[in-house]
Amino acid sequence: MSSRAILIQFDCDSQPSVFDGVVAIDSGVDHLLPHANVRPENVRELVYGAIFTRAVSELHRTAIFIGGSDVAAGEAILAAVRKTFFGPMRVSVMLDANGANTTAAAAVLAAAAHVDLRGAKAAVLAATGPVGRRVVQLLAASGAEVRAVSRNQARAVAVCEAVAAKLPSARLSPCAGGSIEETERAVEGVDVLVAAGAAGVELLPEKTWRNAAGPQVAVDLNAVPPVGLTGIEATDRAAERRGVVCYGAIGVGGMKMKIHKAAIRRLFESNDQVLDAEEIFEIGRSVR
Amino acid sequence: MSSRAILIQFDCDSQPSVFDGVVAIDSGVDHLLPHANVRPENVRELVYGAIFTRAVSELHRTAIFIGGSDVAAGEAILAAVRKTFFGPMRVSVMLDANGANTTAAAAVLAAAAHVDLRGAKAAVLAATGPVGRRVVQLLAASGAEVRAVSRNQARAVAVCEAVAAKLPSARLSPCAGGSIEETERAVEGVDVLVAAGAAGVELLPEKTWRNAAGPQVAVDLNAVPPVGLTGIEATDRAAERRGVVCYGAIGVGGMKMKIHKAAIRRLFESNDQVLDAEEIFEIGRSVR
Amino acid sequence: MSSRAILIQFDCDSQPSVFDGVVAIDSGVDHLLPHANVRPENVRELVYGAIFTRAVSELHRTAIFIGGSDVAAGEAILAAVRKTFFGPMRVSVMLDANGANTTAAAAVLAAAAHVDLRGAKAAVLAATGPVGRRVVQLLAASGAEVRAVSRNQARAVAVCEAVAAKLPSARLSPCAGGSIEETERAVEGVDVLVAAGAAGVELLPEKTWRNAAGPQVAVDLNAVPPVGLTGIEATDRAAERRGVVCYGAIGVGGMKMKIHKAAIRRLFESNDQVLDAEEIFEIGRSVR
Repeated sequence: MSSRAILIQFDCDSQPSVFDGVVAIDSGVDHLLPHANVRPENVRELVYGAIFTRAVSELHRTAIFIGGSDVAAGEAILAAVRKTFFGPMRVSVMLDANGANTTAAAAVLAAAAHVDLRGAKAAVLAATGPVGRRVVQLLAASGAEVRAVSRNQARAVAVCEAVAAKLPSARLSPCAGGSIEETERAVEGVDVLVAAGAAGVELLPEKTWRNAAGPQVAVDLNAVPPVGLTGIEATDRAAERRGVVCYGAIGVGGMKMKIHKAAIRRLFESNDQVLDAEEIFEIGRSVR
Repeated sequence: MSSRAILIQFDCDSQPSVFDGVVAIDSGVDHLLPHANVRPENVRELVYGAIFTRAVSELHRTAIFIGGSDVAAGEAILAAVRKTFFGPMRVSVMLDANGANTTAAAAVLAAAAHVDLRGAKAAVLAATGPVGRRVVQLLAASGAEVRAVSRNQARAVAVCEAVAAKLPSARLSPCAGGSIEETERAVEGVDVLVAAGAAGVELLPEKTWRNAAGPQVAVDLNAVPPVGLTGIEATDRAAERRGVVCYGAIGVGGMKMKIHKAAIRRLFESNDQVLDAEEIFEIGRSVR
Repeated sequence: MSSRAILIQFDCDSQPSVFDGVVAIDSGVDHLLPHANVRPENVRELVYGAIFTRAVSELHRTAIFIGGSDVAAGEAILAAVRKTFFGPMRVSVMLDANGANTTAAAAVLAAAAHVDLRGAKAAVLAATGPVGRRVVQLLAASGAEVRAVSRNQARAVAVCEAVAAKLPSARLSPCAGGSIEETERAVEGVDVLVAAGAAGVELLPEKTWRNAAGPQVAVDLNAVPPVGLTGIEATDRAAERRGVVCYGAIGVGGMKMKIHKAAIRRLFESNDQVLDAEEIFEIGRSVR
């Protein structure tokens, strides 16, 4: 009989996420070990507990999930976890703080269902937030020419440089989006438009982002009204609105959930996986 | 196959109650997600995790239990939980902070096993504490004429007003119980006498509460000696003492435990239940 | 059907040990209830939750594990747990803070596999730490003549007195080990040499502890190089090095893990066990 599947939950918040706990259980995990207030500096002892308790041949039955509301904190925890591994002494680990990876993957997969991303033109609004950065990366990795739009041009440049460092062949342009006029110019002529803004910030009024030239698909990842792209409803799921295929945050939620569960199950297939944006996106492709 | 039964434990204390955890497991819960230090202001994110993770048709397999030592804190958490629900996006929830609801239900059911509560006269000592208030409410709801006795007359009045607001037909009298003489007068001629006092506070010496006229049943909910009604033993379970049927805290403990487990199981029958004093009392009736 | 096996984990650290959690699950525990930041003064309520929730006939299906990095804190928690029990109202409890009991048991069992401990001469370096004290006790209980070596002679005397108080027949000598010369003298002519020092402290260079007269077995419990007995590798498991059978920390790790799991399983056989150094050592004998 194989060992029971144990998922160790590292959460940076003071309460471990119930969301992540329920999804883990629904993905077939036998035992969940939740840890709140996890910091990079207290990860080592916890990871030792994961890697020194089972035979190497059974280490694929233990895994780590990194969640919590702060994506940067989650990234720091992931770096600390990876630094603790050595040789075969490792377990698989998944990062999905604030749902950023599964949300970005679901958004790009929604677009890819309607547009061939290779060679397509795409714009990402609020591109410098944790979800926005990932959407830029995944669109670029899928072959799209991506405009990273941000109120802060310097941060847009930084995001493009960071993605280019991972993907030398990426075609990226940082774009200023400080005003509606600037943003309007930045999205002109794109096939795919994704808004990854913070809750309740309107990024573009309806008439400015929807025109004869496109886009073909528009995705707004904001669940709380007002959405960033006026006109899209949170529940839109391939809703056609004046010729544009629209998705809202709830509309991509079903796919996001499927990706999340598939990624958790994948963790228990081997002990050497690190599931971050691209790996989770690849898993998403297979569950479409 | 139906989803696994998940109970999310909201506890206001710094350690989640082991008592509530073990009872949950013995009630058939598959996964327990304990949360300590829960405050009304951090409930929303946790409740979202409960209601946004499963299809509405499976939401009855997730539930929330509110415990901890502070009943007022538990009530505030329950209010915050209910405020977060909307439409069908809800899960069933049970309040039993400090065991107040299951204890009060067990006490009134013990009395009801010997006296027809409709039209009976009852007195509740220490009626303004969390258990006392619930005993007053359940006795009144069962049709008894209830005297709410407290050292503080104003608080006795407040309890009667609060119960009357919920049960307009209730027959309630606030009674001063500042001295043994006052208390003696307040309990004169009652059929049912329940003492819900704090640990180690003697409320009435033996000779004053037991007389020719009654009561028929006396219940003392204090487990730690001295009990409030001198002469009753904590282990008394329908023990006849000079013509009075007596129950102590441990004596009603078996019934309390049965009610607690039945209520937990009930949570998983639908996703729209709120189990507070009266609902838990009703469940208790069916497990008698 | 018998009740589900519940292990309540009391950990003095701010994160409950993942190590202890995984081992508990691999020992067959159905539900783990982890508690961090446990202090002797908050143990009572938690223990009440363990002993007042199940019938006495089912109390052997609930147990307490005391872990965490601080052995003295664990001992204080154990004392508080035992004080809360009364009559048959108890559950079995195991102390293995910092792995001290299972490590000491594994070290002495490793030695006993090669030397008849009855009448053997043994020396324990760093004998006043939590593991060292336990090794002294277990060697003495097995009939060896034990030299407890420490840089601090007064603490070595205190350890010998504490062990003698439990084992009046023990043959113990406190020895000063402030310098290499003193330590060399202390280990001269012993059959068994155990080093229980802190990480990275070299206690004896190779040429001084290994000579024509012995020892027959040398065990170094330090996993992080440099080990205390130069020449031993952490992975040594009955490795013969110039006539001495050598064990390192990882080399005794397999046995330590077997003892840990057997002890957890033993907890669920009755509700009245207290598993500390000697009881865990006895369990270790049966799993050899």
